[in-house]
Amino acid sequence: MKKVALVMGSDSDFPNLTGCVKVLKEFGIECEARVMSAHRTPELAMEFAKNAKSNGFGVIIAAAGKAAHLAGVIAAHTTLPVIGIPIKSSTLDGLDALLATVQMPTGIPVATVAINGGDNAGLLAVQMLGIEDEGLAKKLSDYKEAMVQKVIKKNEALQQEIAKL
Amino acid sequence: MKKVALVMGSDSDFPNLTGCVKVLKEFGIECEARVMSAHRTPELAMEFAKNAKSNGFGVIIAAAGKAAHLAGVIAAHTTLPVIGIPIKSSTLDGLDALLATVQMPTGIPVATVAINGGDNAGLLAVQMLGIEDEGLAKKLSDYKEAMVQKVIKKNEALQQEIAKL
Amino acid sequence: MKKVALVMGSDSDFPNLTGCVKVLKEFGIECEARVMSAHRTPELAMEFAKNAKSNGFGVIIAAAGKAAHLAGVIAAHTTLPVIGIPIKSSTLDGLDALLATVQMPTGIPVATVAINGGDNAGLLAVQMLGIEDEGLAKKLSDYKEAMVQKVIKKNEALQQEIAKL
Amino acid sequence: MKKVALVMGSDSDFPNLTGCVKVLKEFGIECEARVMSAHRTPELAMEFAKNAKSNGFGVIIAAAGKAAHLAGVIAAHTTLPVIGIPIKSSTLDGLDALLATVQMPTGIPVATVAINGGDNAGLLAVQMLGIEDEGLAKKLSDYKEAMVQKVIKKNEALQQEIAKL
Amino acid sequence: MKKVALVMGSDSDFPNLTGCVKVLKEFGIECEARVMSAHRTPELAMEFAKNAKSNGFGVIIAAAGKAAHLAGVIAAHTTLPVIGIPIKSSTLDGLDALLATVQMPTGIPVATVAINGGDNAGLLAVQMLGIEDEGLAKKLSDYKEAMVQKVIKKNEALQQEIAKL
Amino acid sequence: MKKVALVMGSDSDFPNLTGCVKVLKEFGIECEARVMSAHRTPELAMEFAKNAKSNGFGVIIAAAGKAAHLAGVIAAHTTLPVIGIPIKSSTLDGLDALLATVQMPTGIPVATVAINGGDNAGLLAVQMLGIEDEGLAKKLSDYKEAMVQKVIKKNEALQQEIAKL
Amino acid sequence: MKKVALVMGSDSDFPNLTGCVKVLKEFGIECEARVMSAHRTPELAMEFAKNAKSNGFGVIIAAAGKAAHLAGVIAAHTTLPVIGIPIKSSTLDGLDALLATVQMPTGIPVATVAINGGDNAGLLAVQMLGIEDEGLAKKLSDYKEAMVQKVIKKNEALQQEIAKL
Amino acid sequence: MKKVALVMGSDSDFPNLTGCVKVLKEFGIECEARVMSAHRTPELAMEFAKNAKSNGFGVIIAAAGKAAHLAGVIAAHTTLPVIGIPIKSSTLDGLDALLATVQMPTGIPVATVAINGGDNAGLLAVQMLGIEDEGLAKKLSDYKEAMVQKVIKKNEALQQEIAKL
Repeated sequence: MKKVALVMGSDSDFPNLTGCVKVLKEFGIECEARVMSAHRTPELAMEFAKNAKSNGFGVIIAAAGKAAHLAGVIAAHTTLPVIGIPIKSSTLDGLDALLATVQMPTGIPVATVAINGGDNAGLLAVQMLGIEDEGLAKKLSDYKEAMVQKVIKKNEALQQEIAKL
Repeated sequence: MKKVALVMGSDSDFPNLTGCVKVLKEFGIECEARVMSAHRTPELAMEFAKNAKSNGFGVIIAAAGKAAHLAGVIAAHTTLPVIGIPIKSSTLDGLDALLATVQMPTGIPVATVAINGGDNAGLLAVQMLGIEDEGLAKKLSDYKEAMVQKVIKKNEALQQEIAKL
Repeated sequence: MKKVALVMGSDSDFPNLTGCVKVLKEFGIECEARVMSAHRTPELAMEFAKNAKSNGFGVIIAAAGKAAHLAGVIAAHTTLPVIGIPIKSSTLDGLDALLATVQMPTGIPVATVAINGGDNAGLLAVQMLGIEDEGLAKKLSDYKEAMVQKVIKKNEALQQEIAKL
Repeated sequence: MKKVALVMGSDSDFPNLTGCVKVLKEFGIECEARVMSAHRTPELAMEFAKNAKSNGFGVIIAAAGKAAHLAGVIAAHTTLPVIGIPIKSSTLDGLDALLATVQMPTGIPVATVAINGGDNAGLLAVQMLGIEDEGLAKKLSDYKEAMVQKVIKKNEALQQEIAKL
Repeated sequence: MKKVALVMGSDSDFPNLTGCVKVLKEFGIECEARVMSAHRTPELAMEFAKNAKSNGFGVIIAAAGKAAHLAGVIAAHTTLPVIGIPIKSSTLDGLDALLATVQMPTGIPVATVAINGGDNAGLLAVQMLGIEDEGLAKKLSDYKEAMVQKVIKKNEALQQEIAKL
Repeated sequence: MKKVALVMGSDSDFPNLTGCVKVLKEFGIECEARVMSAHRTPELAMEFAKNAKSNGFGVIIAAAGKAAHLAGVIAAHTTLPVIGIPIKSSTLDGLDALLATVQMPTGIPVATVAINGGDNAGLLAVQMLGIEDEGLAKKLSDYKEAMVQKVIKKNEALQQEIAKL
Repeated sequence: MKKVALVMGSDSDFPNLTGCVKVLKEFGIECEARVMSAHRTPELAMEFAKNAKSNGFGVIIAAAGKAAHLAGVIAAHTTLPVIGIPIKSSTLDGLDALLATVQMPTGIPVATVAINGGDNAGLLAVQMLGIEDEGLAKKLSDYKEAMVQKVIKKNEALQQEIAKL
Repeated sequence: MKKVALVMGSDSDFPNLTGCVKVLKEFGIECEARVMSAHRTPELAMEFAKNAKSNGFGVIIAAAGKAAHLAGVIAAHTTLPVIGIPIKSSTLDGLDALLATVQMPTGIPVATVAINGGDNAGLLAVQMLGIEDEGLAKKLSDYKEAMVQKVIKKNEALQQEIAKL
């Protein structure tokens, strides 16, 4: 199976991204994570993107904050789908990263998920790999069913909370 | 090859989406487009989403404006990747549709592209289908190269504009 | 008297909603609260909404954060009035939930209250039930009068604060 | 049956509100529309609100733009449910009116609909009156079904548009 | 000399307003502060506003958060200048209160200061009273000069901070 | 009676300000209008502000767009009350001018009115001058009453519009 | 003297940038303008940026809309100062381009000017080149003085406009 | 070599600016820092700006929060390039300072960096001084290379973090 790459603009973004790594692991997908910056290490980013396909990656996830160019810069150098995670930084509540990630010009899309949406980026990568992989598709169905059960249990717990009011 | 579905909340969104259909056609991907509404025809939307995979679709693109729930509602009923296109309506400049599309809760991602970003939604679908399809991947490389040539030509035209200043 | 349902997208929203439950209790209205998700348990949400009227509910209150689709999805499946409470989450200060709740397309309204406005959602439900119920209408008048008295007392307390400056 | 009042801060708001009047007429509900201003005619607004219930109104709809205080001021003087329609004016795209209408303090809710959402305000009023009126509830079901048919027809028309691409 | 009134929508706003009271005291202007709500005690607010001029007030300062209608409602009932202080509440960072205070319709102005700008509201009131009062105008000049001296001292302190770097 | 100055950052702002001049004329207040820029003619602005009081002005109104510094710069050099009118320019819908005008630091208030709120700036200036001038106060009362009559007439006209629906 | 480069993400941005070219010409600075895209022609952009200094450029101006990465990508590959011009596109009024241009991470600054601020980008480049060039500094002084005269003339013209009111 | 001035509107901004001073020191550039206010000490600011060039400064950095006029006011009185740092204050997350700094009118540019972007302001000043100074340009290249090495080390550390997951 194709691997998934998770690249982040700064190691300080990593606490928001552990869920992404765990989701991929849960679905049995090999994930490599790297720190690289569109601005501080542009050539590393370019080299990584250019070779990602031949290095066995099927999807690239890129997380960055502020003027979040990383996903767009990666997307400029690959034909693989690129998922962008806007990271909330100390000002503007993530709106800057969201707009800088999602508002890509025609020709170079970035599949943007919610601000700090690491888990969903992982799931989206699984969905992409699952288009042609029935095993993954089955696991995704099971995952969806497990979510239903979790919500049902939370609902039961809520009934006890309410009884206390 | 898997088909791509393009669903839209209102037929008035279609003028923003012709580019999406054309891109898919250009890459030789079969596309079915439908009007359905998360709110006005919720059961049609649910039925469509539930059966999309078995009906031969590999990716679903959903376009909606205002409180744009369509992509999220589709995503709730399928394990296929869902691409969301926020549509600009008469107020708030598309910000409402962008946030309602991208800020999905953990568990149900929507791959969001730019406001009115129909062409990029099409390209992203091609990229997803191209993960395991070398033919499509090659076409994407050619598409990227053609973009380079277009920019180079535009640059040449610009030189003549500037000479006139 | 008709019952009021309070549904929430996540049990983590409940701390913002205890005021809603208390207000309904204060007015002697039976309230049932449930966790259900427009995205994680869409069929539960649909079933609940479809049967709410025949199950004796008169108003449904739906609270959700981020891309808050819950109220809209409930409204799609019922003719009862649906009140939406946008919940503030960890990014964007509730603006995403507000827009995703209030900007509903023509045909499916959601009666939106303030971000985290659980108490007011409860009061609004009481007002709706009170249209044809003189007893409730009288209690609402008394509630309004009690608010006047509270403000008057707070004003008296303020005078002592100011004297200390 | 109770009447519905539609009050607006300025006669220039009326073009955005004809849909509201038509929806109410379509459901056979008597509607009275008036221009009154929270700021320019505060006493008229207060008198209207205080007497609305005894004058046979069951719901009040208030539309205003900019610092849209009208719905809140009406709500301060009645126990009837008040529906607020934020009107888009020449600056800020309706965001000012939305926030000024929806962010009401605890104790005085306003049931806010989308910016310029006149039709939905009308429908919401019908839903409120329909809580205890099976005839109205039945008409709402029919209305919902008619929307489904309209979407289905639009979908058919779309297929012809797409064939032309 | 005319008095200044400081009215606030909630006693919880008072901590943001002590600076306002102190500034007025510093300039020797009599200030009365009251809690009153545009929505919870609309008649008290109206009565207060209507009688403010005859009760010896020259300026009214009104502070409120969220859908901050208080200043506008006061202004509707008086010909005195009304200063509005938007108060930051738990969501939207004060933007709601700012827009609800400043975006008044033609005919009823509110002199809006910065979010949580209590001190400046006090100073603005002094400036208004100082138009025809040379004594106050002189005190304002002295106040301005004292600010210059404070900045100069802070600059001197900064030099020592910098030397430590 | 004291005069009112109306200064504007650009002559292109004037079309938004004719209402301001007319209001002042209507109340019999002498108004001088000037183009001056906080950035392009900072010394003219400073000189004007410093001498405004001794030149017989009682209030200064300053209108500017974009990074609207004019009101703040004028306020820095005078003890007169300064009214700021944020002007909407070709981008950001006036939000930039609003924030740059209203968010003044402690010590230097600007009495901000709505975006493009020229008429209200004029009225606010009249209210300030009317604090100590019973004649002006009486005219303001008449003006308020005339507004009531206008709204009543508009309401009558509306009834005829509605009858046509 | 060093040359100035003006690069733009799309030839459709050029109408907003003619002022920039004219300003540079007015100051006698050689300017080369090119279309290149951070996303569509990333290698051209990189090559250009890497060689800009050795090719005789002293300052690079980069204009782009939407997720405006061009200035940041250029800055990643050069030690020359890079000026960013955010271009307003069809949605979000330029806010996306502004944030994507200005919110650069530590280490790679972009000197951002106003949305569509082409003229000011040109002037800023002149100021940078003028740090060590007394001739340019003198021209900048003259330019400033000419602006003063223009404002004075506009003020005179305004007096005639006002006389007509 | 020309000196760099760092002026700030309030000494409370200094904690956000130590990085700026350190960057300049690291590059061997003499920096003088001062507290001065566009509003509280406008004449000091004007005098400083007017004499900055003749006092040996080559670049001025101005940091301010809220209605951040300082950079613009400084720029009005000098032909030197002025770098603006918008400072985040207690409301609006720095958006007010960003817009008030960057949206300068034609004729008076301010080179704006990110909110609280002190380090980048310092680097940008170095880049400006480095246009004609090969020694500084070389140091900037080394600085860029050092950043690459830092990112590479952080990437190595990340690998160990990931192994722990």
